[in-house]
Amino acid sequence: MRVLGIDPGLTRCGIGVVDGRPGRPPDLVGVDVIRTPTELDTARRLRRLEEELDGWLAEHRPDTVAVERVFAQHNVQTVMGTAQAAGVAMLVAARRGIPVATHTPSEVKAAITGSGRADKAQVTAMVTRILRLAAPPRPADAADALALAICQVWRGGTSARYESAGDSAAEAARRQRSALARARAQAGTGRSGASPTVPPVNVRPRRVS
Amino acid sequence: MRVLGIDPGLTRCGIGVVDGRPGRPPDLVGVDVIRTPTELDTARRLRRLEEELDGWLAEHRPDTVAVERVFAQHNVQTVMGTAQAAGVAMLVAARRGIPVATHTPSEVKAAITGSGRADKAQVTAMVTRILRLAAPPRPADAADALALAICQVWRGGTSARYESAGDSAAEAARRQRSALARARAQAGTGRSGASPTVPPVNVRPRRVS
Repeated sequence: MRVLGIDPGLTRCGIGVVDGRPGRPPDLVGVDVIRTPTELDTARRLRRLEEELDGWLAEHRPDTVAVERVFAQHNVQTVMGTAQAAGVAMLVAARRGIPVATHTPSEVKAAITGSGRADKAQVTAMVTRILRLAAPPRPADAADALALAICQVWRGGTSARYESAGDSAAEAARRQRSALARARAQAGTGRSGASPTVPPVNVRPRRVS
Repeated sequence: MRVLGIDPGLTRCGIGVVDGRPGRPPDLVGVDVIRTPTELDTARRLRRLEEELDGWLAEHRPDTVAVERVFAQHNVQTVMGTAQAAGVAMLVAARRGIPVATHTPSEVKAAITGSGRADKAQVTAMVTRILRLAAPPRPADAADALALAICQVWRGGTSARYESAGDSAAEAARRQRSALARARAQAGTGRSGASPTVPPVNVRPRRVS
């Protein structure tokens, strides 16, 4: 399945697209950051963002869009812009009939690194390794959008449906743990195998061939 | 000029349309509340809101859209939904090339009642009087959207441009104060004339015939 992850923002909006299935390392399809000019008013910036995001949906036709869930921060004006950008992201997906899932930053970090409190460098290193890239993804702040997309492929999201399939959820979970352990071992994080920090697994029980 | 005011929200989004010019009591054109089903996910609710709002813009073709500026409240989840709804409101206006202005709740209250801390009943009473309605507008919670639209007609907003015109800003301001004082006297609020509580005036200097 193809997931388009969106790390919403008015000034910088991260986009990451991956193809994959639970239990396997997904493949990178595309990554970028959408910027809107700070000299435009908010309405026009949202309009620019809508056009750019809809272009990504038209080109990549994802099965699911994953949007980072926005929380209040100390900078209220920034969080309002972020919430509005997230709203536009959800809107353009809904308009095309694409299911939208949301994940909190700590859910994403836990899915990718095994710790909900991992720092940015750890997330970027794991994204690079999981996607088998020769170098960290560029632009650098698009790594979060890729992490979000990988999280959605592996864990499913709020709108994921359980499908009847021949493969069991337990088997898919086992494969996912193995893939994560392999990626960690390659990333040299010093963790491997059935580490107690491996995050809870919540995958779609579909066939993994 | 015609202003469409939007009091944003996912569960209830107030809409109010007025025709008017600075210094004169505006006329009511339309008022309603858009509701989206709580059982839908946020993405689909934003999509419903987009369709409804765009229908209002298509039907009434306002010169300006005024959106209430959202601030953080104690209920973070509610304010996120409100910010997303405001984002969609700004987006649909920008897509049609309609300028968007924003006002804080206290700016609206000050413009309509003379006090930035007026309560809901005072705002509703003044909206009813200013628009010369036989009864308070229905639905009741649409009064804020009408107040926003009246505020925009009288005070202009963040995106209002100053136009060259034969009438002076001072003259328009004088007419506006008179209209407000007349409405207050009729509403029986006990205030009249050049009360020190009359709000600061920031009108567009256009001809008032």
